[in-house]
Amino acid sequence: MASSQQSAGSALDTNFGVDYVICYRLAAADKGKAEAQFEKLVRLLANVGLDLEVRDGDDCSVLIFTKIVSERHLLGEVYRSRIKDWLHGIRLTAPEKETEKLLASEPLTDSERLRIAYFLITSPESEGGAGITPQKGEWKNVESIFPLHNRSFNKEWLKRWSGKMYISAEDLTEIRDRFGEKFSLVYAIAIGLWSAAFIEYWKRQEVDLAVRWGVRGASSIQHLRPEFEYEKEVSDSVTGEKVKVFPARKRLVRQLLQVPFAILAISVLGGLIATCFAIEIFISEVYNGPLKWLLVFLPVGLLTAFIPILTTILTGIATRLTEYENYATIDSYEAAMTRKVFIFNFITCYLPLFLTAFIYIPFGSLIVPHLDIFGLTVESLMDDPKQLQMPKAGFQINSARLQKQVFYFAIQAQIVNLALEIIVPYIKRSGFNKVKKIKSSIASRRGGEIPDASMNDPPEEAAFLARVRDEARLEIYDVNVDLREMCMQFGYLVLFSVVWPLSGFTYLVNNWFELRSDAIKICSGMQRPVPWRGDSIGPWLDSLGFLAWLGSITTAALIYLFGGNGLGPEGTPWNIKVWGLLLTIFFSEHIYLLVRLGIRTILVSIESPGLQKERQERFSVRKLYLEEWLGEEEAARIAEGLVGKADRKMLGEEAGGPIGAKAEDKFWGRQQGLEETLKAGKGIISRSASREKKDQ
Amino acid sequence: MASSQQSAGSALDTNFGVDYVICYRLAAADKGKAEAQFEKLVRLLANVGLDLEVRDGDDCSVLIFTKIVSERHLLGEVYRSRIKDWLHGIRLTAPEKETEKLLASEPLTDSERLRIAYFLITSPESEGGAGITPQKGEWKNVESIFPLHNRSFNKEWLKRWSGKMYISAEDLTEIRDRFGEKFSLVYAIAIGLWSAAFIEYWKRQEVDLAVRWGVRGASSIQHLRPEFEYEKEVSDSVTGEKVKVFPARKRLVRQLLQVPFAILAISVLGGLIATCFAIEIFISEVYNGPLKWLLVFLPVGLLTAFIPILTTILTGIATRLTEYENYATIDSYEAAMTRKVFIFNFITCYLPLFLTAFIYIPFGSLIVPHLDIFGLTVESLMDDPKQLQMPKAGFQINSARLQKQVFYFAIQAQIVNLALEIIVPYIKRSGFNKVKKIKSSIASRRGGEIPDASMNDPPEEAAFLARVRDEARLEIYDVNVDLREMCMQFGYLVLFSVVWPLSGFTYLVNNWFELRSDAIKICSGMQRPVPWRGDSIGPWLDSLGFLAWLGSITTAALIYLFGGNGLGPEGTPWNIKVWGLLLTIFFSEHIYLLVRLGIRTILVSIESPGLQKERQERFSVRKLYLEEWLGEEEAARIAEGLVGKADRKMLGEEAGGPIGAKAEDKFWGRQQGLEETLKAGKGIISRSASREKKDQ
Repeated sequence: MASSQQSAGSALDTNFGVDYVICYRLAAADKGKAEAQFEKLVRLLANVGLDLEVRDGDDCSVLIFTKIVSERHLLGEVYRSRIKDWLHGIRLTAPEKETEKLLASEPLTDSERLRIAYFLITSPESEGGAGITPQKGEWKNVESIFPLHNRSFNKEWLKRWSGKMYISAEDLTEIRDRFGEKFSLVYAIAIGLWSAAFIEYWKRQEVDLAVRWGVRGASSIQHLRPEFEYEKEVSDSVTGEKVKVFPARKRLVRQLLQVPFAILAISVLGGLIATCFAIEIFISEVYNGPLKWLLVFLPVGLLTAFIPILTTILTGIATRLTEYENYATIDSYEAAMTRKVFIFNFITCYLPLFLTAFIYIPFGSLIVPHLDIFGLTVESLMDDPKQLQMPKAGFQINSARLQKQVFYFAIQAQIVNLALEIIVPYIKRSGFNKVKKIKSSIASRRGGEIPDASMNDPPEEAAFLARVRDEARLEIYDVNVDLREMCMQFGYLVLFSVVWPLSGFTYLVNNWFELRSDAIKICSGMQRPVPWRGDSIGPWLDSLGFLAWLGSITTAALIYLFGGNGLGPEGTPWNIKVWGLLLTIFFSEHIYLLVRLGIRTILVSIESPGLQKERQERFSVRKLYLEEWLGEEEAARIAEGLVGKADRKMLGEEAGGPIGAKAEDKFWGRQQGLEETLKAGKGIISRSASREKKDQ
Repeated sequence: MASSQQSAGSALDTNFGVDYVICYRLAAADKGKAEAQFEKLVRLLANVGLDLEVRDGDDCSVLIFTKIVSERHLLGEVYRSRIKDWLHGIRLTAPEKETEKLLASEPLTDSERLRIAYFLITSPESEGGAGITPQKGEWKNVESIFPLHNRSFNKEWLKRWSGKMYISAEDLTEIRDRFGEKFSLVYAIAIGLWSAAFIEYWKRQEVDLAVRWGVRGASSIQHLRPEFEYEKEVSDSVTGEKVKVFPARKRLVRQLLQVPFAILAISVLGGLIATCFAIEIFISEVYNGPLKWLLVFLPVGLLTAFIPILTTILTGIATRLTEYENYATIDSYEAAMTRKVFIFNFITCYLPLFLTAFIYIPFGSLIVPHLDIFGLTVESLMDDPKQLQMPKAGFQINSARLQKQVFYFAIQAQIVNLALEIIVPYIKRSGFNKVKKIKSSIASRRGGEIPDASMNDPPEEAAFLARVRDEARLEIYDVNVDLREMCMQFGYLVLFSVVWPLSGFTYLVNNWFELRSDAIKICSGMQRPVPWRGDSIGPWLDSLGFLAWLGSITTAALIYLFGGNGLGPEGTPWNIKVWGLLLTIFFSEHIYLLVRLGIRTILVSIESPGLQKERQERFSVRKLYLEEWLGEEEAARIAEGLVGKADRKMLGEEAGGPIGAKAEDKFWGRQQGLEETLKAGKGIISRSASREKKDQ
């Protein structure tokens, strides 16, 4: 407990109570300007009630350590934030007003504290924050704002996960035994069912988790984009707050630009991929001249060189377009951007497979002979024209190409990707450290002065500050990158895995590692992320739904084309019956949609625990108010639908009332009391019965 | 104002304050039993606080007039009902507790009063009602429970509507000019766009209207079906009420019986229709023997005879199946029944058209020669075998058949239907009155006694009671009948109207009348309906969506088959390219779905006034509570996100605090106050800058 005796080693486990570290970089050569801006930054931060310490960072940066200044102040902010949640309907019960009760009923989590601190630093001044926008506008020098990792938690987390094994070896053997290895109809049906069930299940699970985590509707509290340009400021008819408005119609018109953009992206990327595809086929299967060993790498080279360039250019256009669409909130901006990026990803990931499956294999023998536009150019360079063995009619297509490609995406690409995610950042970091050491040793040899920021560190903080400097150098985590990766993998699975059913298994294995490698990445490869609240995976859910739907079409087509029922176009596309293919697709797609509807219907009919909890809370809140107002007993009676019967009987006896002068009063006064009514009724019954007898 | 002078004529405009009339029929010959049951009924009604008067009905019935006994009692019920709404989230503000304010803030509408009275009469005793279930169980003798029409309102309503003309003649000419009369691609696109827009618009409009009418979520207050059989009674984890439970899984298994039922219905009805269709074609286009003039009516006769019988049988099975599925609430029961009935309706309405368009016309010349199984049987009866002119190969199909059928549904069927709806009930009623008069005159001649219920009427009530007896004889209005009619019409429009685009116009005309004839029907042809609350057209919306989707397929197919581009199979089905047809369908369907998605996206991005109102109310309610708890000023500050800056500055100056013994305290105490922090930071900046200079 005597923490003054903390060793440097255990200091790695403490964050010194730091909420956020702000990394201020001195990019501006002008020292005076940098100082002035720094002073402004520090004053703004102090102004919103943050305690500050500055330390020397590395590479010309100042590290500003912040924490919320006093418990009382923090509690005030917690209360404000919870009240805001309540006003927006994210929580149903108003938070306790008294300070002690406030935290006793719902303890403050790390996330909540960090979220509040982040808002204090980044919200606009009009909303009570310091208005610091890292890397943007006047705060270009603020490189990053990040919380420090909780080392002991991270260690525990990774340890727990690495010990868990969800899939036993038997399961995997069974999968193999059941689905075999190639073009299985059973597998196709299974994957269709699974994808439909997965989408519907996730939709439900998402809501359920959001309710359990108390973030349902969190997306309705929107964070204003600082770059948002408003046309006018009106007071919101709902909340009475002043709201910055940009007309929806105007935005709609701007959004229409997405159509030409999508066409551009598709034609540019698609054109490149198709061209390289054609070159590759020509060189590997037609061309037989000199330098073949080298030319084989040409299409790969072209793709490797141009895809990143084109993607960067297109992403730039997409960013500008999304900025032009001028979204008011961060969420809607990101959703719009995600939608655009999905188009590139779709083309770069799946187009090569589409080309192989639906162009090259069925129509290869028609198209390949026309590739001699390349053949002619090569011919003139060659000594012997016979080196170009262009098959005129009997060209044999390489039907293993599709399997090879699917195999590549299922195994090699996954391994490469995993390596890129873990190993490359590690190498980068250790390389950086080595470079730094070399630099400093050179400098010390040259000038004698060691230009190291850690020079002036107080010894008991040295280890801690070294760690903070390390974390400051890490990249910022973007959850969309991991979501995109999973979404694209889902796409390979539902679109093409029927070609090689074991690929489903390889993805399973990959994800076992992926889950853990992403955890490692978040814990040690990235700055600790700001704990944003989310209640949905947002636009990615639409992407998953679209891919699964498309999967029902491609899988049917692949089964029909290559199903081994004799219809497969092994170099003989003439035998494919187009109407058969279209009919297969038609049925597969509609059966898929029906199944999905059925699964949704079933899932809806079973109430999820999360929604039940929400309903429970809503009802109990209302009942509580009722009790406060009416007294418990009366409230219970109303809630249970019981009304004192005694009252009623008494009232019943009151019936009739005085005979008034009005016809209406006379009408109701004709039979005084219950007994007279009964007597009159029985009289009618007797008369009717006798009338009926006479009638017969 | 002196209402004692009300004439019999103006008595037609008063309802004597009657809430509901209960018609108790003496079907049981046993007078004693009828009396005992009647006594039980009256006592139960008096028990729940209703004032009662009985009068003689016609045809061996007793009319029991009910009204809620005292204003105080009514107000109690209003309060209970509004509290229940609030507990279930239908209304956001709790109702006023004080009696005067209760009605001053929201006046009691006719509907609310009638709804409350209806619940008092029909709710189970456990829920505080009298538990009367008309025509069911022990209350078989309770023929109906109905409110009386408000004559003056009805008159005003019909007058207002008949004066309104929404569509001008110019519009119609324009429609004709634009779409022509036959197989127009432009029309097909227009109808596809319109149907997609209509569905999405209605979905939004439905929510909007529900919010405006204050019934959003009304379907969440479910009314228990009296026939519901529960397996166990558990106390609801949410409301704490005792809830009767039937396991959802068990119901799901029972629901699976719908599949064989659907197959049965489709094969029985479909088989009948297909058979009659074949007979009709054979007789009208192949057969040329004796009695042709008579035999032509055979298929129509068969259909007219058997369709109602089969429909009745199937409806009986559907009812039993739905009862077996054992739904807990009236709403879910009706939705399940509606879904089943939709299957029959779909087959009986559209199958003849499907057969003509997609079987008879393209494959007629293949199939018709095989119809000679009938030909042979006829042949043996005939004198001259040549009378049966069976065309062997050159059979010419009657391609006008499809247009004729569409024309029939667009014009004749609509007129017949309109006539059935208005004129038949009118004739029925006046016929009934005549029969009654004749009967009574015979009886008076025979026995001298006039067996008329009106004999004993007090003179000032005579006119009123005569009116009530009339209304008691009317049928009960079922909104599903009208919804089904509109839904089926929508189906003709989206599925087949491309065959004869003017049919869209005839439906428009029909609906102009339909709207008004339905109003007349509700006002004078039916008992006044119980004012249920609804927040959706429920399962009919799904039906509309399904029909519109299917329409995108049939319309494409019709355009492709008969589009006049030379591909139309005028007796030459061999020329149709199946892959072309399938490809057309594929594109049409997917373009339709894309357009619908686009329209939905646009509609969602524009906030509807209803939803805005809801958001506004929710927010203002919460803000109100906040103000009550915190005082107005503080609440405004929290809501606007402003926190006193003065507090913060003060807090900022507090920063630092005493240097503690802990490393953490030491860390935060290193720089005392803002000025020291600034100084330290500037020091770092200077050193960094100089380091950088040396480095270069």
